[in-house]
Amino acid sequence: MTHTDDTKTPHLEVIPLGGMGEIGKNITAYRYEDEIMVVDAGLAFPDSHQMGIDLIIPRIDYLQQNAGMIRGWILTHGHEDHIGGLPYILPRLPKVPVYGAPLTLGLVREKLSEFGIKDHETDLREVDLNARFKIGKHFEIEYFRMTHSIPDNAGYILTTPAGRVLHTGDFKLDEHPADGQLSDLGRIEQAGKDGVLLLISDSTNAERPGRTPSEAEIAVNLEDVIANCKGRVFLTTFASQVNRIQNILNIAHRQSRRVIMEGRSMLKYAQVAQAVGHMNAPDPFLTNDEVGGMQDQQVLYICTGSQGQPMSVLSRLAFGNHAKIALRRGDSVILSSNPIPGNEEAVNLVINRLYEIGVDVYYPPAYRIHASGHGSQEELATVLNLARPKFFLPWHGEPRHQINHAKLAQTLPRPPKRTLIAKNGDVIRLSADEFKVTGTVPAGAVYVDGLGVGDIGDDVLLDRVNMSQEGILIMTAVLHPTPHVEVVSRGFVRANRDLDNQIRKVALDAIEQGTREKKRLEDVRDDMYGAVRRFVRKVTGRNPVLIPMIVD
Amino acid sequence: MTHTDDTKTPHLEVIPLGGMGEIGKNITAYRYEDEIMVVDAGLAFPDSHQMGIDLIIPRIDYLQQNAGMIRGWILTHGHEDHIGGLPYILPRLPKVPVYGAPLTLGLVREKLSEFGIKDHETDLREVDLNARFKIGKHFEIEYFRMTHSIPDNAGYILTTPAGRVLHTGDFKLDEHPADGQLSDLGRIEQAGKDGVLLLISDSTNAERPGRTPSEAEIAVNLEDVIANCKGRVFLTTFASQVNRIQNILNIAHRQSRRVIMEGRSMLKYAQVAQAVGHMNAPDPFLTNDEVGGMQDQQVLYICTGSQGQPMSVLSRLAFGNHAKIALRRGDSVILSSNPIPGNEEAVNLVINRLYEIGVDVYYPPAYRIHASGHGSQEELATVLNLARPKFFLPWHGEPRHQINHAKLAQTLPRPPKRTLIAKNGDVIRLSADEFKVTGTVPAGAVYVDGLGVGDIGDDVLLDRVNMSQEGILIMTAVLHPTPHVEVVSRGFVRANRDLDNQIRKVALDAIEQGTREKKRLEDVRDDMYGAVRRFVRKVTGRNPVLIPMIVD
Repeated sequence: MTHTDDTKTPHLEVIPLGGMGEIGKNITAYRYEDEIMVVDAGLAFPDSHQMGIDLIIPRIDYLQQNAGMIRGWILTHGHEDHIGGLPYILPRLPKVPVYGAPLTLGLVREKLSEFGIKDHETDLREVDLNARFKIGKHFEIEYFRMTHSIPDNAGYILTTPAGRVLHTGDFKLDEHPADGQLSDLGRIEQAGKDGVLLLISDSTNAERPGRTPSEAEIAVNLEDVIANCKGRVFLTTFASQVNRIQNILNIAHRQSRRVIMEGRSMLKYAQVAQAVGHMNAPDPFLTNDEVGGMQDQQVLYICTGSQGQPMSVLSRLAFGNHAKIALRRGDSVILSSNPIPGNEEAVNLVINRLYEIGVDVYYPPAYRIHASGHGSQEELATVLNLARPKFFLPWHGEPRHQINHAKLAQTLPRPPKRTLIAKNGDVIRLSADEFKVTGTVPAGAVYVDGLGVGDIGDDVLLDRVNMSQEGILIMTAVLHPTPHVEVVSRGFVRANRDLDNQIRKVALDAIEQGTREKKRLEDVRDDMYGAVRRFVRKVTGRNPVLIPMIVD
Repeated sequence: MTHTDDTKTPHLEVIPLGGMGEIGKNITAYRYEDEIMVVDAGLAFPDSHQMGIDLIIPRIDYLQQNAGMIRGWILTHGHEDHIGGLPYILPRLPKVPVYGAPLTLGLVREKLSEFGIKDHETDLREVDLNARFKIGKHFEIEYFRMTHSIPDNAGYILTTPAGRVLHTGDFKLDEHPADGQLSDLGRIEQAGKDGVLLLISDSTNAERPGRTPSEAEIAVNLEDVIANCKGRVFLTTFASQVNRIQNILNIAHRQSRRVIMEGRSMLKYAQVAQAVGHMNAPDPFLTNDEVGGMQDQQVLYICTGSQGQPMSVLSRLAFGNHAKIALRRGDSVILSSNPIPGNEEAVNLVINRLYEIGVDVYYPPAYRIHASGHGSQEELATVLNLARPKFFLPWHGEPRHQINHAKLAQTLPRPPKRTLIAKNGDVIRLSADEFKVTGTVPAGAVYVDGLGVGDIGDDVLLDRVNMSQEGILIMTAVLHPTPHVEVVSRGFVRANRDLDNQIRKVALDAIEQGTREKKRLEDVRDDMYGAVRRFVRKVTGRNPVLIPMIVD
């Protein structure tokens, strides 16, 4: 079923291709008549069943099929779940203007250049967070500033002949942001007065009561912790936490510690943020080679590894295999971060190793040194109250977050007339009096693994899961001159000659019986497969992936 | 290095074989001269790298090597991490008395019978929680009651010629336990006055400030939630939460709901708990077949699945594949539980599916309907203050928990003279003035998978991990009559004839060159392996597990 265009009422189609019913790989298309504009193109990280996958990007069949209609692209901010898919996606579509704020585009440029994509192959257009511009004939965009865990973060108002859409983008309402630049609630309120037909708002923390703590509170707590550290300090946070890192640079300056940045992504973000004026180091950064003569209490390392990534600086420090730095008693390690769901075990392992080394370790919740970048219920309510939308689309969340966001909206003085809990691929028809799903387009995950994009499907992942649980057993039957069977296994059981011999015999019996009965080769192979499967299950209680081969 | 016996001072050896530096598979041996007694024998669940493993039991080489010295065994309570290893371990050692409270032994009997172990093969001795008895010549045991998330939970005082050890067992200090039976703090205080040489105490929640909420508070909150449910209620919690389930039975009775127990383990625990008088259903349980004529608000299902286990009742309900029950709008699902680390993703999946069905879902932290069974810092401090030990061994925790427990002890008015952060296998020598690790014995994990116990080692697990990340590629080269190569893969890439052909050609080239050069068969095989590995890495960026076979 695809979208329909059967009426003449002016209507807009909102088509989430990623980030709806999930957290990650955000991308949304808007279509009005024969024009399409797109917002963001993010990536997602695999869950535990998507084994061996490096990352996931959204399917863009819909955009490819309608490539000629695409008039432009806007980016809300520079997080991976909003821009990480661009190097895979932009080259597959016609070159159109891509709008974004300075830091956002700085990070995009860096990313495209890593992929060998040349400047002239894209049309990046830097705008500020008050920019108003048109895309195609029908899309009028007004950016507005929203605070988040990265600077230059935008929401936008999209005005079309079918009505006005206000999309918050990712946000929290931080009253004391590190750069002093507040969310533009005035713009949301004005839009509310002018009339918002549809509000699309960030559902990430729709289950959390109250307000998300301000970045200012985190900075105060970090300064308390750092002030009490006697030796070297190693601090990790998300490399994209530019404002928090700015606060940490200021703290280091006040406490007479020089900062060393360690880890590729930490250096990259710092470089881009400095280039666009979002980071100003009060003292020049040092390299690790330059700290030789300094005292322990004069240095503060900011390093990668807040998610326990095995190759990160913090993991190498924790496991004692960093080439140049060895942790020791008296050092302090500060994790200004929480594990993202799925990373709990890796982070826990790092923390335990740090304790075993004997360093002092500081992390939430015992220390309130991290805050989410997404607003909690009071902040979500504020936006709903100001925007006063007719229709509401909870976005950037799994069903639990979307539905709690919807319930929250119903408790407010002016609840929306209708709320949709949408999924990726839904075609949502929007006009002055319509707000409903009228069809679907292809949407879902494209797996990126090594150099392959899309060459791994769910069948391949299922094999990986099966092999990970039970191992694999390969039987090669050679029929001539004398039938015999070779058995090789991986991940099945510890080398066991007796068991191998038994399996060989079971397989050989099946082969010999089949050949005596002059069965076809495929049937002989199936007989061997079945006999070995039953035998293995009976003797070991397991079901390895079985591969039977016959060499005639 | 093994333990040494080189002095004549009376000394006790404390030998943790599981549960020290980890949470799970608790087992501790004590040795005095030529006598050994053992405490508990639990199991643990695999982490994400121990793929396909069903469960983990402790290595007991030390006990097997010194089997003739074992005089008896005591059990602290009926949780799997304390008794789950018994069916694997008891049959491998001489029959000795095994002491435990009624519920604990009831659960042990059930477990042994599932494994086909006959009553006469073990010597289970039921005692109450004030029991005093001797094991061997030198071990005097006094049980005392401690509140926890299962009834009949014991700590114990072990008196030996070398001094007195007080082991809390797992505990929280619940001032309002469901069965009204308080922790015996008087016994701990008396021991403290008599002199505790060593305290071994539960470190699980050593990082949590304050007190763990009482079970009574949970019951009040559960009653609030259930009272507001209009339709059917489906509640899940740990099946071993006997006291909480008793509270829920009482709530159901007050609210005129009849209870249906669903799920094998829920029924098993209820049956054992009823048999020993720890559960009294105010109304008889119904079966699902008997609720036909009842109204929705008259039923309350208590079901398995609090950890998102795929075959549990709640998962089958959430995914719509329960044979007899289908959830529908108007139903309420209550999760009186938190995910155990590692189960977050599975539980999240179930919760999202429940939202998608449209049922109302209640779970922590939005609803305070679960509390840990382990005490927080204030409770740990209370025990330390009462026991006033000379030496302290934080147990039942990972290094982060042990070390925070140790730090907590140092903040108290009478800190221990020495604290050890021990590991499984450490031989800890204890006498009036000694408390140190003097050696190690083998300790670690035995993997149970299917029918196999110990037939999977770390090499097998490494193969599983590698195959899960990269898949496997099997090349079979047949040399006669004409050399040709078959390629089969699983979990590598989606079926791709071109790539298969290229790989075949690369392999065949290597084979033909090798045979031309009259290399040995192993060398030809290695050449094929190397050539294919390089080619696959270059073309796909991946490193599948490669299996080269040659049929001559």
